[in-house]
Amino acid sequence: MNISLLNGEAGTLPVSHRALAYGDGLFETIYVDQQGPHFLSQHLERLARGIKRLQLNYSEAQLAELHDSLTHLCKNLQSPHVLKVMVLRQSAGRGYDFVPTEQLSDTVIQLSDYSKPAWAEQGACVMVSDIPVTESTALVGLKHLNRLDSVLARQTARQLGADEVLMLDAKQHIIQGTMTNVFFKIHGKWQTPLLKKAGVEGIYKQSLMQRYDIEERDIDVAVLDDIESAFITNSLIGIVPISELQGRALLVCSDLTSE
Amino acid sequence: MNISLLNGEAGTLPVSHRALAYGDGLFETIYVDQQGPHFLSQHLERLARGIKRLQLNYSEAQLAELHDSLTHLCKNLQSPHVLKVMVLRQSAGRGYDFVPTEQLSDTVIQLSDYSKPAWAEQGACVMVSDIPVTESTALVGLKHLNRLDSVLARQTARQLGADEVLMLDAKQHIIQGTMTNVFFKIHGKWQTPLLKKAGVEGIYKQSLMQRYDIEERDIDVAVLDDIESAFITNSLIGIVPISELQGRALLVCSDLTSE
Repeated sequence: MNISLLNGEAGTLPVSHRALAYGDGLFETIYVDQQGPHFLSQHLERLARGIKRLQLNYSEAQLAELHDSLTHLCKNLQSPHVLKVMVLRQSAGRGYDFVPTEQLSDTVIQLSDYSKPAWAEQGACVMVSDIPVTESTALVGLKHLNRLDSVLARQTARQLGADEVLMLDAKQHIIQGTMTNVFFKIHGKWQTPLLKKAGVEGIYKQSLMQRYDIEERDIDVAVLDDIESAFITNSLIGIVPISELQGRALLVCSDLTSE
Repeated sequence: MNISLLNGEAGTLPVSHRALAYGDGLFETIYVDQQGPHFLSQHLERLARGIKRLQLNYSEAQLAELHDSLTHLCKNLQSPHVLKVMVLRQSAGRGYDFVPTEQLSDTVIQLSDYSKPAWAEQGACVMVSDIPVTESTALVGLKHLNRLDSVLARQTARQLGADEVLMLDAKQHIIQGTMTNVFFKIHGKWQTPLLKKAGVEGIYKQSLMQRYDIEERDIDVAVLDDIESAFITNSLIGIVPISELQGRALLVCSDLTSE
């Protein structure tokens, strides 16, 4: 099933829309199967945090209505789907400015068939990208629409023949993949990058952090050779072991418990 | 006159467009008056540099055709207008990836009436924003569609009652305004931020750099009190003196010659 809705109806956007001009909005990508949308509350909580930080006009009532619409839309699906939600700032006028009390938001919902890529079953071949992650303490953690760093880094994955690439910050710390959070086992201890200036706080990452003793810390790319096992995660692929990291085979370890 | 064209015709964008999803594209904002579009070649040269760096599919022939279309469109305009051009990556499929040889580009052209804001005549009141500029060595200099930092900083201008705000990088260097490049006279010498990791290389800035002896260097926000005179520039307002900087009146100096 493939559905695309703008504020609940079929629709297109004017080329003057500021979400296009500036990437002025947020999105969520949600995995759906027969049980319905996975981690729906957590996705909408992250969306709510983004709405607050970007000062979008989107009320609690709208969020509750969105929750109900998404649940209803995903009823009785017999196969896996991906549900994408975007909340876009709509505002008249030209330029970066907007009047906080006069803005509205547009809601885009897209439901599409989804099948996991082969590497999500077999383990991922991961390389390091020379495209750095974009850094901003004002935007860190959010799943906003300014994603050119991931677009460019994804091309390096294509060039390197990798399934995913690691993006570093200016200090050569590993931050994330283009579409995944990353987890490394180093000296028997599981760890994941501390996202202070860059990176998306993934919903699947959050769920692992709650269940396991995983340390969030700065991880210099220099420790790459010390990594014993590794995972990448996102809401669609779930948790996928890295089977090969920068050309070196890794131990595939299905246990996130630190030694 | 107000005109909006998508690939030469009236049109709207599907909500699935990747330029919306990721800010995957570039733009130029060009001042137009009875003489036609100002600095048109320079704008299209910057666009061409961006096309190369973002690996968009947009040929020299398309750029030449764009040049002709814009020139034609702006003929015989009797009043000032703003001409906005966007080049958007169009590509099928979901996710950050695109096939370099299979992508197309969409061209958006918007022509609108323009009148300078009052402060562009009188001098601008400028404050410092606490929203940092987004940093990326892969994207520095480009006028791309990932502009959430300017959107958020522009709101701080609104809150502070300023005409423009200065955005700093993580090292507390002054980089630019939300929509302007900045020039400061310190100890008799004109200088402008060196854009290594953040900021847009403005066309008006480039034109001043060619005509005057202005040093490009790191400018720490700590030197704010040493600034004797200052300008902000962009293609629409041209060059506008800062009459008040962080609450302090500045000498309005119409001479960019260093002492």
